[in-house]
Amino acid sequence: MWIRVLGSAAGGGFPQWNCGCTNCAGVRAGTLRATPRTQECIALSADGKSWFLLNASPDIRVQLESFPPLQPQRTRHTPIEGILLTSGDLDHCLGLLSLRESQPLVVYATQTVRAGFVEENAFARTLQRFDGHTTWHRLEPGRVQALHSSQRGNSGLTVLPLLVEGKPPLHFLGFPTPGEEHTIGFIVSESSSGKSLAYFSSVAKITERLCALLDEVDLLFFDGTFWSEDELIQAGVDRKRSWELAHLPISGVNGSLRALERVRCPARVYIHVNNTNPILRDDSPERQIVTQAAWQVAVDGMEFRI
Amino acid sequence: MWIRVLGSAAGGGFPQWNCGCTNCAGVRAGTLRATPRTQECIALSADGKSWFLLNASPDIRVQLESFPPLQPQRTRHTPIEGILLTSGDLDHCLGLLSLRESQPLVVYATQTVRAGFVEENAFARTLQRFDGHTTWHRLEPGRVQALHSSQRGNSGLTVLPLLVEGKPPLHFLGFPTPGEEHTIGFIVSESSSGKSLAYFSSVAKITERLCALLDEVDLLFFDGTFWSEDELIQAGVDRKRSWELAHLPISGVNGSLRALERVRCPARVYIHVNNTNPILRDDSPERQIVTQAAWQVAVDGMEFRI
Repeated sequence: MWIRVLGSAAGGGFPQWNCGCTNCAGVRAGTLRATPRTQECIALSADGKSWFLLNASPDIRVQLESFPPLQPQRTRHTPIEGILLTSGDLDHCLGLLSLRESQPLVVYATQTVRAGFVEENAFARTLQRFDGHTTWHRLEPGRVQALHSSQRGNSGLTVLPLLVEGKPPLHFLGFPTPGEEHTIGFIVSESSSGKSLAYFSSVAKITERLCALLDEVDLLFFDGTFWSEDELIQAGVDRKRSWELAHLPISGVNGSLRALERVRCPARVYIHVNNTNPILRDDSPERQIVTQAAWQVAVDGMEFRI
Repeated sequence: MWIRVLGSAAGGGFPQWNCGCTNCAGVRAGTLRATPRTQECIALSADGKSWFLLNASPDIRVQLESFPPLQPQRTRHTPIEGILLTSGDLDHCLGLLSLRESQPLVVYATQTVRAGFVEENAFARTLQRFDGHTTWHRLEPGRVQALHSSQRGNSGLTVLPLLVEGKPPLHFLGFPTPGEEHTIGFIVSESSSGKSLAYFSSVAKITERLCALLDEVDLLFFDGTFWSEDELIQAGVDRKRSWELAHLPISGVNGSLRALERVRCPARVYIHVNNTNPILRDDSPERQIVTQAAWQVAVDGMEFRI
């Protein structure tokens, strides 16, 4: 499986348009050892021809232009065979609306995420311009399903979606939500090699079942949003603690670094990194801690072959 | 007035994600003399401190990062005092949803464009997280109004919105539209100098009244979407003629080049240029024709002071 990180930052990206925190101001001024990042999205393929995206970030246009295998080979064409959504948060699905030029699209999502996107949104009609414009495949947590290639039939990949503790998107705050399946992670497996990737970019709680599953995968992308529980408060940008935003922090007695310490997965990557997170600075003590614990920090353009 | 072109391409940008036409394939391969362009948006300011955007393109994140005067000067801040929309087309307003990090926003739009954005869109609720999150000012075609600066009161700028022949956004195709004021252009004037800018990035028809107004301005941005009426058909990407998309082509007996020939405005710029348009190639005969007629072709990063 060929995996390319197209975007590695949390919602807003790094730097974030209205943020002048230490990290954002420093990366703009060039005074920090840090690399700008677009919003979280990865591309993967078994054969290098049929590609799938995990999430569709608002930065999708520049992300697709950054990676030639995702570019058209004919007058109207895309090698993207499907887009899998982990949630209905705008940083995960808004990019779908940038793919609106009458190109047939295939989207995989839970019934909750699909309903949240199509049912109350006039904008979503831009992806319903003709019969067959957008095909939604329902992801059912716990059920393995094949990822289909329109060009080749079998893409060689299967996905196991898994429900994780999360929260409804902010635009449902105070409104009834269309279901309960708000946040999922994926185990994507390649049929021929048996290799697999775990993708959990938003996680509020780590269960024993999750740890057992992660023992079996070859590569793990995990929620690296916040270093600490009170990071936004410390940075002076928000009053919310990480758990109120449904993200487990990396550090601390209940953090992911410790909770995943004994997981046997050989390659681990923190992704969906918020602009306030000190691990974005290449020379920070916090970066050193995650590196020493054999974690990598995702950056746009990073690739893996498993 | 200080004017900066943040984006100069029509919807989809240049190159467009699923397009392999001569222009898009050539600019990706580096075999054409052409510059990539993001989707149409300009920034303007009377004092270099309070800024206004005309349109909010899906590329807004990279556009704001490309121009330091639009970046925050404190932990949470933006120098953007208002965003004026010419239409409810997604390439003109989707970027608003990328400005959702709890920053108070001011948007100027007709009642039709406002209703199309807020009334049927669950996504739009992400800009209504608290009282005063987004303030909508109604633009009434034909009525001059001041652009307000929250920091300084008077921004030194006024806007005259003018209704132009256009069409409802594609996501209203087959649905009732919330009014008639779908497409407008602007005359933005600086009170102290009397200098003014005309901005008409989507125009289906040029009237005598419009020509008379353009006689009086110092700088004109005009709809440069298509070179010819059958450009999309020739490129093999669509069956629609330019008039079906509510854009007057540049060339031809009814084109804008001829219709605006006698307008006295001293500086003219084609903007909202579609990826199929031959004027995107720096050395094309079509570029030579517009250049000889004293028109410029907008490119990201271009600036004017009037």
